[in-house]
Amino acid sequence: MRAPLIDNLQYAKFSPEIFAQMRAGGVDAVHVTIAYHESFREMVLNLEQWNRWFEAHPDLIFKGTTGADVRLARETGRTAIFFGFQNPSPIEDDIGLVEICHQLGIRFMQLTYNNQSLLATGCYEDEDTGLTRMGKQVVREMNRVGMVVDMSHSAERSTLEAIAHSTRPIAITHANPSWWHKALRNKSDAVLKALTESGGMVGFSVYPHHLAGGSSCSLADFCGMIAEASRRYGSQHLGIGTDLCQGQPDSVVEWMRVGRWSKVIDYGEGSAAQAGFPAMPTWFNGNRDFGNIRAGLLKAGLDAGEVGGIMGGNWLRFYDESFGPA
Amino acid sequence: MRAPLIDNLQYAKFSPEIFAQMRAGGVDAVHVTIAYHESFREMVLNLEQWNRWFEAHPDLIFKGTTGADVRLARETGRTAIFFGFQNPSPIEDDIGLVEICHQLGIRFMQLTYNNQSLLATGCYEDEDTGLTRMGKQVVREMNRVGMVVDMSHSAERSTLEAIAHSTRPIAITHANPSWWHKALRNKSDAVLKALTESGGMVGFSVYPHHLAGGSSCSLADFCGMIAEASRRYGSQHLGIGTDLCQGQPDSVVEWMRVGRWSKVIDYGEGSAAQAGFPAMPTWFNGNRDFGNIRAGLLKAGLDAGEVGGIMGGNWLRFYDESFGPA
Repeated sequence: MRAPLIDNLQYAKFSPEIFAQMRAGGVDAVHVTIAYHESFREMVLNLEQWNRWFEAHPDLIFKGTTGADVRLARETGRTAIFFGFQNPSPIEDDIGLVEICHQLGIRFMQLTYNNQSLLATGCYEDEDTGLTRMGKQVVREMNRVGMVVDMSHSAERSTLEAIAHSTRPIAITHANPSWWHKALRNKSDAVLKALTESGGMVGFSVYPHHLAGGSSCSLADFCGMIAEASRRYGSQHLGIGTDLCQGQPDSVVEWMRVGRWSKVIDYGEGSAAQAGFPAMPTWFNGNRDFGNIRAGLLKAGLDAGEVGGIMGGNWLRFYDESFGPA
Repeated sequence: MRAPLIDNLQYAKFSPEIFAQMRAGGVDAVHVTIAYHESFREMVLNLEQWNRWFEAHPDLIFKGTTGADVRLARETGRTAIFFGFQNPSPIEDDIGLVEICHQLGIRFMQLTYNNQSLLATGCYEDEDTGLTRMGKQVVREMNRVGMVVDMSHSAERSTLEAIAHSTRPIAITHANPSWWHKALRNKSDAVLKALTESGGMVGFSVYPHHLAGGSSCSLADFCGMIAEASRRYGSQHLGIGTDLCQGQPDSVVEWMRVGRWSKVIDYGEGSAAQAGFPAMPTWFNGNRDFGNIRAGLLKAGLDAGEVGGIMGGNWLRFYDESFGPA
């Protein structure tokens, strides 16, 4: 049996068509974002939408909560959908909601989304003050129940403190190294070293603002970056987190960037001239294109075992170790 | 091994002391009420309180969601706590919250608490218009996910319609027959016949307002009533649902009766002269007293098998059949 195929971050405009594409692409599991700025109650509405999809399309998808669900997906020819938040807004100011959200199936939570949160500092703030008092308590609670700390959109010091404070490995589900492409959202060598040395995982993003050369980044360049990361950090800590936003209208990227926290537009990684979603690179437009990345990694000199790990085996091991009580 | 011991309705002022009394009394499972008038978000706060108790007292209690959890409780010397609502207020006007609440562990939901709800009519209304449009949809959804319809506080026609409309057996978790003690909260012979003929369960209440003679009701009288119900309906459909409110201050019975729906006090089953919680009968004051009921049932002429079923075996069978998809 081939190695598992896991995409550890998507926020596509999900639909039966995209679920069918997941099957056509042989994707065993996807970690999907279900909250950017939502309150707890609003996030539950998003869960309800997923419940309706699970009820209507049991032949294509089901809700995943454990590594065993990835194996079940492979055995039954379906895709297991795992839930995560890109912002702690759904837990509001209530640490008890960490366990409630875990009981509802949430398996990843970013401590920040670009801005300062109640827990830590986001990567677009001028000052990074690290984990807050509540942030330290919440990391401990996430460790207890088995919810993974995700620092993809967090600032440097906050990320290093989360790695140090967490008693279990954490994740950067979707970002690339800043030594390859300097962007506020990409991660320093120091962060990636501390992350992987503590058993954490990084998922490489295909979102154009995270790519050297943007939308015109070549597959060879992307895979060469992963090969270099394998040499620096060990391939067993690497995976994919495409940040696929397939089919989303530009109103959604505005919601992601501004939520309700500002009355004026903030362009985030974009600009006034390039305000909407950027065009994807030609070699990755959706769930049927993972074969391109797999072939590109082999061509970049990684061996079949390493490639199998990066395409999903490493995330599966991480899921097995992370999603329940320690 | 003795038959399982299940109390299918309590709303005590729970505490480590009461959990220890559950263990001292050999209680394997308790269905506890976690909402009377709460919104969804407020009900989640009550779940959080239970999560803290589960974390602090894993040697005494754990969260139960299946019949298997009752067996696990017996094997490990603990009490499994099952959750239910006495009012559909936590699902608000959102049918998607039925599945969300099931995912959070809710296993029983009353369609009404005394008053008209969005779903059906309560037993204190002047007019009983049966299941509403939303009520019919919600019963279907509860049937799908495996949440038990509970009509303990509902009016006659609504109860008969719920029994007829539900494709799975329903429950009256805590009430007594009105042929034994005429009270708005007790149930007619017609309701109890329709309930039990469709495979449903009734749990007999020890709450004094439901007892012939109130607080001075004798154990022999109570157990004689159960023996007569066994002859009428078959003992396999009978269980216990004490409605134990041990330790609650009178402010709580006011909350149960009035919530936020009235600016003036409503005495419910009580009266201005007897506004608070009534005194319990001498033979049942808490979780260590189930032996009295067991002995009383044997003395009333029921055989050991029947008594084992009524004290918990019947609820366990019902749990096994009711708490998941059909």
